[in-house]
Amino acid sequence: MLKLFDLAGAEDDRRFSPYCWRVKLALAHKGLAAEIMPWRFTEKDRIAASGQGRVPVLVDGDKWIADSWTIACYLEDAYPDRPSLFGGGAGRALSCFYVGWTDGVLQATMIRLVVRDILDHVHPKDREYFRRSREQRFGKTLEEVVADRDRNLPAFRASLAPLRTVLKEQPYLGGASPLMADYIVFGAFQWARATSPFPLLERDDVVYAWRGRMLDLHGGLARKAPAYAA
Amino acid sequence: MLKLFDLAGAEDDRRFSPYCWRVKLALAHKGLAAEIMPWRFTEKDRIAASGQGRVPVLVDGDKWIADSWTIACYLEDAYPDRPSLFGGGAGRALSCFYVGWTDGVLQATMIRLVVRDILDHVHPKDREYFRRSREQRFGKTLEEVVADRDRNLPAFRASLAPLRTVLKEQPYLGGASPLMADYIVFGAFQWARATSPFPLLERDDVVYAWRGRMLDLHGGLARKAPAYAA
Repeated sequence: MLKLFDLAGAEDDRRFSPYCWRVKLALAHKGLAAEIMPWRFTEKDRIAASGQGRVPVLVDGDKWIADSWTIACYLEDAYPDRPSLFGGGAGRALSCFYVGWTDGVLQATMIRLVVRDILDHVHPKDREYFRRSREQRFGKTLEEVVADRDRNLPAFRASLAPLRTVLKEQPYLGGASPLMADYIVFGAFQWARATSPFPLLERDDVVYAWRGRMLDLHGGLARKAPAYAA
Repeated sequence: MLKLFDLAGAEDDRRFSPYCWRVKLALAHKGLAAEIMPWRFTEKDRIAASGQGRVPVLVDGDKWIADSWTIACYLEDAYPDRPSLFGGGAGRALSCFYVGWTDGVLQATMIRLVVRDILDHVHPKDREYFRRSREQRFGKTLEEVVADRDRNLPAFRASLAPLRTVLKEQPYLGGASPLMADYIVFGAFQWARATSPFPLLERDDVVYAWRGRMLDLHGGLARKAPAYAA
């Protein structure tokens, strides 16, 4: 049986890694069951066999695979008879841009709104690591990062414009049904939902409606997970 | 034979509409010849049969089709035996996001660097229209818009990060060979090249190398067009 190391928080069932959500939804999309192993930031030794120190890490027999994009490509190739995550070779190539945009724009903007809230859900043994590594990245305290979040919210919402272009035309980024691109982008919203009550989206936004559809997928996998309603 | 109305500038062969470039490259991709009809902003009457006032407008027999995305979808459906622009249904759905990002982010940022240079290449009879409509949009003069462009250039280059994520992995956004997504994004760079000597890209940027490959496609279609080397 597949195993997935999944970032867990202070509560064992508080799962907030956007990258792990990408993979959990990809597994569900392919109808693949996996044993989900809760993991904390500081437990590098448990995933050492993957050759690096971050989750998600998928274990399939004797293979250890890290990085959500690498795992998605692995699942697509190793389980080709299951529903496709990409809809073909062109779809796979075209999905890579969603990784770049989500990591470099969406999550990079979003973290400035919610990073202090995330800290409250990080496992106590991880908190010092989390605060130190993130404050080093931002060059300021987590409290300072989010201090202006009300003022920064309109710019964040404006930055979602490319999603709206698509979601006004079709229910999912993948078209009539979801593909890996949807899971990549949705992971960011689930990360925020799982840790922060801050309302990122307005209710009349097509992105809000899409997020609702994503929450309902695969038996409500993401909706059932502990999170704020925001 | 297909006809395409293509925005032309002060010189008849100065073609700078990013949307028209998307379609010219899509036509070349499909190996479809078209009579290219030079058109100026103020010649709304010549394309009235399309039901709107902007180019590109494609004429195929008795059909008039406007909007570059609509035209790309039309070409894909009307000429299915030609090389695909999307690589299948998933690829088409996934390509829509590139329109949103290119229109809403890439070109919206780029125009603040080059719009005053564009004016110099607009046909004299269009210049008053171009200046008035653009200054209304920006709420300032074209000269004021570009005044800080040296200072804004690093942020523009940083905004290309999602492209770099992809182009470090594969030669085209579409994978091993170009797809419509490449033409959508490239159109913006060709728009700037055709009108401005301002160096948008550094030579060691993977985006610069990709742009070079795009210029060489289809017999150097874009490289042969009048433009700055920038």
